[in-house]
Amino acid sequence: MSLKFPFTSLIESLPSTVPFVGPELQERIIGAPYRARIGANENVFGSSPKAREAMRRELDHCWKYTDPEFLNLKQAIAEHHNIPQENIVIGEGIDGLLGVASRLFIEPGIPVATSKGAYPTFNYQISGLGGNLVTTPFVNDHECPDALLKLAREENARVVYLANPDNPMGTWWSGRELDVMIAALPEHSVLFLDEAYVEFAPEGTSPPIDLENPQVLRFRTFSKAYGLAGTRIGYVIGHRELIKAFDKIRNHFGLNSFAIAGANAALRDQDWLVRVKNDVALAIRRIKDIAIENGLKPIPTATNFIALDCGRDGGFARAVLAELGKRAVFVRMPWVAPQDRCIRVSAGKKDDLDLFEKALPLALSRAEN
Amino acid sequence: MSLKFPFTSLIESLPSTVPFVGPELQERIIGAPYRARIGANENVFGSSPKAREAMRRELDHCWKYTDPEFLNLKQAIAEHHNIPQENIVIGEGIDGLLGVASRLFIEPGIPVATSKGAYPTFNYQISGLGGNLVTTPFVNDHECPDALLKLAREENARVVYLANPDNPMGTWWSGRELDVMIAALPEHSVLFLDEAYVEFAPEGTSPPIDLENPQVLRFRTFSKAYGLAGTRIGYVIGHRELIKAFDKIRNHFGLNSFAIAGANAALRDQDWLVRVKNDVALAIRRIKDIAIENGLKPIPTATNFIALDCGRDGGFARAVLAELGKRAVFVRMPWVAPQDRCIRVSAGKKDDLDLFEKALPLALSRAEN
Repeated sequence: MSLKFPFTSLIESLPSTVPFVGPELQERIIGAPYRARIGANENVFGSSPKAREAMRRELDHCWKYTDPEFLNLKQAIAEHHNIPQENIVIGEGIDGLLGVASRLFIEPGIPVATSKGAYPTFNYQISGLGGNLVTTPFVNDHECPDALLKLAREENARVVYLANPDNPMGTWWSGRELDVMIAALPEHSVLFLDEAYVEFAPEGTSPPIDLENPQVLRFRTFSKAYGLAGTRIGYVIGHRELIKAFDKIRNHFGLNSFAIAGANAALRDQDWLVRVKNDVALAIRRIKDIAIENGLKPIPTATNFIALDCGRDGGFARAVLAELGKRAVFVRMPWVAPQDRCIRVSAGKKDDLDLFEKALPLALSRAEN
Repeated sequence: MSLKFPFTSLIESLPSTVPFVGPELQERIIGAPYRARIGANENVFGSSPKAREAMRRELDHCWKYTDPEFLNLKQAIAEHHNIPQENIVIGEGIDGLLGVASRLFIEPGIPVATSKGAYPTFNYQISGLGGNLVTTPFVNDHECPDALLKLAREENARVVYLANPDNPMGTWWSGRELDVMIAALPEHSVLFLDEAYVEFAPEGTSPPIDLENPQVLRFRTFSKAYGLAGTRIGYVIGHRELIKAFDKIRNHFGLNSFAIAGANAALRDQDWLVRVKNDVALAIRRIKDIAIENGLKPIPTATNFIALDCGRDGGFARAVLAELGKRAVFVRMPWVAPQDRCIRVSAGKKDDLDLFEKALPLALSRAEN
């Protein structure tokens, strides 16, 4: 006799999927730890020592609930962007914030536009609400603003997702180009502009913040350039009426004290950020060189990772990935064709890249056979 | 001209409320810090030193995303309860887990049964999904299983909420009494059994875990007895099909590395828990004595807090609370009549209770005038 559970019909209809498999699970499957962890676009150069010191000071106080208003941190973010606090909401990383933001607009059947092969956790959140995802392909390895606008108009999409710079390809548009897109958004659409990697990108990649525009939410994180992925913290900037709506449903006591203290100190240590960006740029240059030496084509990137075109199909790139994994090198790859002809490598430290340099030619030659 | 936002009609209909005002906001309003923080049922005795050490070791690694499967921690919880891992889901505290669990069952209009004046964050989560909250009063300062069952049957409630021990009154039922309730649940109902405080309660307060029962989810936290409120971590135990459903919508990368490491070490240090429970029992006894000396009536409690009956109405208790606040003593009180004749005081350290002992008679005499 099978049991009956009173799940909603939406929950019944959802598949049991996860947006990502963690490297730890892969290690458990392989039965050995990775020696180069350059697959999840983490910042191997780590967080500011000042952030670590601020978090260390929280150790003896973590019996307390955190202030649900995060006043000091909100103030730091407000000063950093030179905007009022009422235009900021802080949450458990972009993944968590995408979940809350999606609930503001999406209910079963509501159309949502994104690019085929763009960030899967966004899709996961939309599907989890019964939203109707419609997609348009990448164009020349870029998420395509024009195609997204066309799709949004045709399908009446209430939310449009675009990451700038993009993940997994690392490509980007200038702020000026995005401003043109924003101005052309259909009246019924809100743009979720995911700027997780924007601190690594050239000046001007982020369009100027226009707090009067009710159609844009931009997502920022401390997981990438600030090196605090493990603490789970990010924020959203937008029109104050949009931001106020988050307070209706967000978990007010969801943020941990380490994240709040670490993010605050990290944001105030911009010197460390400069240093990290420099380290990342050098690492990306070296990955490019390694790729070219091995006959792969690096895709231009504005992030702390780079997609390397392996010149064949997804099956081949997957084989390269698997062979790298066998050599204790953790990298990932894009999810759909034709981007899945690439592997995606995150900026690593010298040891990580030495290992990658050694493993890549072997992986390529194994994958050929 | 007023702007139009494409919010869902549910979001439009929700009020801008928060489940709790944090003591930090109250401090900002008062303009001075509290000297005795005994209002939020936090564990002033703190977490195990081993937990703090485990978290300290995470400081240099928090550039990494956490393992979304939390394998080590899940294993520790499984061993602690002697149950399989497939019956456990870990999340960002009970507040966060109540949010995810509610989404499994609730959509607009679905009836949900709880007690009038029970945990407000549960109500917040249900309202945020458009659920239709129906309530029954406390009976003799207890959430009443029989009344909840009657309500669930009459109103066709899909979820029934009960905290054991209760918050804000601290009262409790034996596991045996709850087993009777569970056996009598209507077929269409799932019981959310909130056991946030159960580690403080007498042996036998938690009904035996029956993993074959598809109608019970029990919520546990590391915020209270384990002293890790600031890290935001809790878990749910239930039938594996119920637990599996969480994976369809939970934020797989929502937990921070400090929470995972701290909870794991805390759970393995049961000696510290024994010590904390002893400290809490002594503090509760002292609060009782102070209350009786001042003519207040302590309500029997199985938690780390105690409700003190001030013998008049809510207005009077609120005045007592305000007067305590002016004397830098942070306490809270129940939300609805007749429980709001009480103030609710959390177990404090010696200094906290010295301050409370000094402030209470003054607060009472001021409140009388």
